[in-house]
Amino acid sequence: MTTVEQATQIILSNALSFGEKKVPLHQATGRILREDLVADRDFPPFDRVSMDGIAIKFEYFEKGKRAFTVEGLQAAGAPKKALTEAGNCLEVMTGAVLPQGTDAVIRYEDLSINDGVATIQIENVRLLQNIHQKGTDQTAGTIIVRKDCLISPAEIGVAATVGKPQLLVSKKPRVAILSTGDELVDVDEQPLPHQIRKSNVHNLASAVSQMGVTANLFHLPDEKAAIREILREVLNGHDAVLMSGGVSAGKLDFVPGVLEELKVEKLFHKVSQRPGKPFWFGSNGSTVVFAFPGNPVSSFMCLHRYFKPWLYKSYGLPLLPVPHAVLAEDFIFKPDLTYFLQVGIEYGKDGKL
Amino acid sequence: MTTVEQATQIILSNALSFGEKKVPLHQATGRILREDLVADRDFPPFDRVSMDGIAIKFEYFEKGKRAFTVEGLQAAGAPKKALTEAGNCLEVMTGAVLPQGTDAVIRYEDLSINDGVATIQIENVRLLQNIHQKGTDQTAGTIIVRKDCLISPAEIGVAATVGKPQLLVSKKPRVAILSTGDELVDVDEQPLPHQIRKSNVHNLASAVSQMGVTANLFHLPDEKAAIREILREVLNGHDAVLMSGGVSAGKLDFVPGVLEELKVEKLFHKVSQRPGKPFWFGSNGSTVVFAFPGNPVSSFMCLHRYFKPWLYKSYGLPLLPVPHAVLAEDFIFKPDLTYFLQVGIEYGKDGKL
Repeated sequence: MTTVEQATQIILSNALSFGEKKVPLHQATGRILREDLVADRDFPPFDRVSMDGIAIKFEYFEKGKRAFTVEGLQAAGAPKKALTEAGNCLEVMTGAVLPQGTDAVIRYEDLSINDGVATIQIENVRLLQNIHQKGTDQTAGTIIVRKDCLISPAEIGVAATVGKPQLLVSKKPRVAILSTGDELVDVDEQPLPHQIRKSNVHNLASAVSQMGVTANLFHLPDEKAAIREILREVLNGHDAVLMSGGVSAGKLDFVPGVLEELKVEKLFHKVSQRPGKPFWFGSNGSTVVFAFPGNPVSSFMCLHRYFKPWLYKSYGLPLLPVPHAVLAEDFIFKPDLTYFLQVGIEYGKDGKL
Repeated sequence: MTTVEQATQIILSNALSFGEKKVPLHQATGRILREDLVADRDFPPFDRVSMDGIAIKFEYFEKGKRAFTVEGLQAAGAPKKALTEAGNCLEVMTGAVLPQGTDAVIRYEDLSINDGVATIQIENVRLLQNIHQKGTDQTAGTIIVRKDCLISPAEIGVAATVGKPQLLVSKKPRVAILSTGDELVDVDEQPLPHQIRKSNVHNLASAVSQMGVTANLFHLPDEKAAIREILREVLNGHDAVLMSGGVSAGKLDFVPGVLEELKVEKLFHKVSQRPGKPFWFGSNGSTVVFAFPGNPVSSFMCLHRYFKPWLYKSYGLPLLPVPHAVLAEDFIFKPDLTYFLQVGIEYGKDGKL
């Protein structure tokens, strides 16, 4: 039987790539960045005032001057002003350009202004204080964010800063989720006594949506010709096909045979794990098929353990780190299988999961 | 100054509610469930075959019979069949109704079938084996999922099972995010030397989108009449207004005064924390205003620390558990403020964050 490690390797070596497209910034969160974000100017782009107050030439303060005539106001968003008298000051607002001829900003809290004269009331003033100097965050031409990363709010902020109203991102995979079996009816139907509603495909579609992917749902009846026709079409139009059920040893499990007819090579069937032992995986080179067991816990586990890493690898992302947690009680499992235990995770006050 | 705890309490006591609506199942993931999910029938709704094989009446096996004539096939999705001869068997498929007159299922792996006779090759057969009995998961009428929870794939699976193609969920809040300051230009504009592009609002909108909420963006210029007009309209049309900048002590910070004119009561201004000290919060009863400091780290921190709990409380959800982590090195911070340290989180092999 294929081990969990072998199955993982086979799946990862069948990663695909989905191409690229441009999307507006407000739709880019959670997608995969495919271009470097480069500083188009210095950041800050000018010596930037970082407190409301007055701007002075520091050497006057150093020489003992405390009262400065206010020449005017340098507002944020206004072109750079200049002191006309080197020993005067300008009122300055947070975000404004530091006026020509000044090199220190004193906060309103540290001065009084009367009759157009600002008097500094503290003794501890430093050169360049309350000034965010040009280019100290980034210099023009620097790569601030490298491509091939997941776009979070931080990357959105950088993209906005460097003037990217659109971003080049990975296309998403076209994913189909297939239910199998004549016992299944749609959610909005009233099942007969021997029928049940489809639920597993909705559970899987929901989990896939949490990975940012919208899946298309299809159903395979227990009829070979119909299975062949639907599978052929689904394989043509999708990068990944997820199935739940349909690959066990049953008389009416036509799926493995039909997949073979359609040139989907079986890469493994059955993994030494519980749950999810009957997991089947194959590929025709352009579409991969994850045929999960019909049991909902199995298929959900397999989706997270196998499909998600495949998705990350296909996106060119590093695999997610695997958190370790401490079991609250012993768990003993005898068979020679990898066991995936369902647990609830709690955060201990000692930092322990 | 308001403490972090006081600020949190004030914000949570100003939680709102956004009303309810029905959404299709495939759009319900991540939303807040507002109805109980009740089993509309027993689950399983019938004694369900859980392995492919044959179904027999166990007492014949017990009496020593090993060869059973195959009467036919009970397929999944087919109405319940019955044995015509009590000592015969039916082939049964996973998911099928257990045929009338049978009470044990033997897997294909444990028998051989020749000339229409199935011969059982194992000795260890139990009554009711490989049968998922009617009602053992849930009995009709049981509440399976209680309302007022976040809808995950598990809830989607339950909703599908009990026949809910639509779910009653919380409406989302109408959130506005406002940039302030004449130094800002749009992302697609080429800034003049004294201008910078808006980025903070895009960062916040991205973070809010990760909470499932689409925000509307507005801009307040440094002009009192314009601020009044825009704020009046924004307050009318939104449940929460998030601002970055505009509430400091600057000469051109008209926002606090205008908010007061518009009957938005200031509930606190300045919190004893770093970053985010100048945080301002108010409400007019139907709309809350989070005026975050203009610094991007501050506003991002405040969004997560204050807006997110407000959102959860407004949705009627329990607050998220706060994970504890172990600092990798000492960090010393002197001022008498609550300090929010930016950290990277790693999962240790010993289960420690």
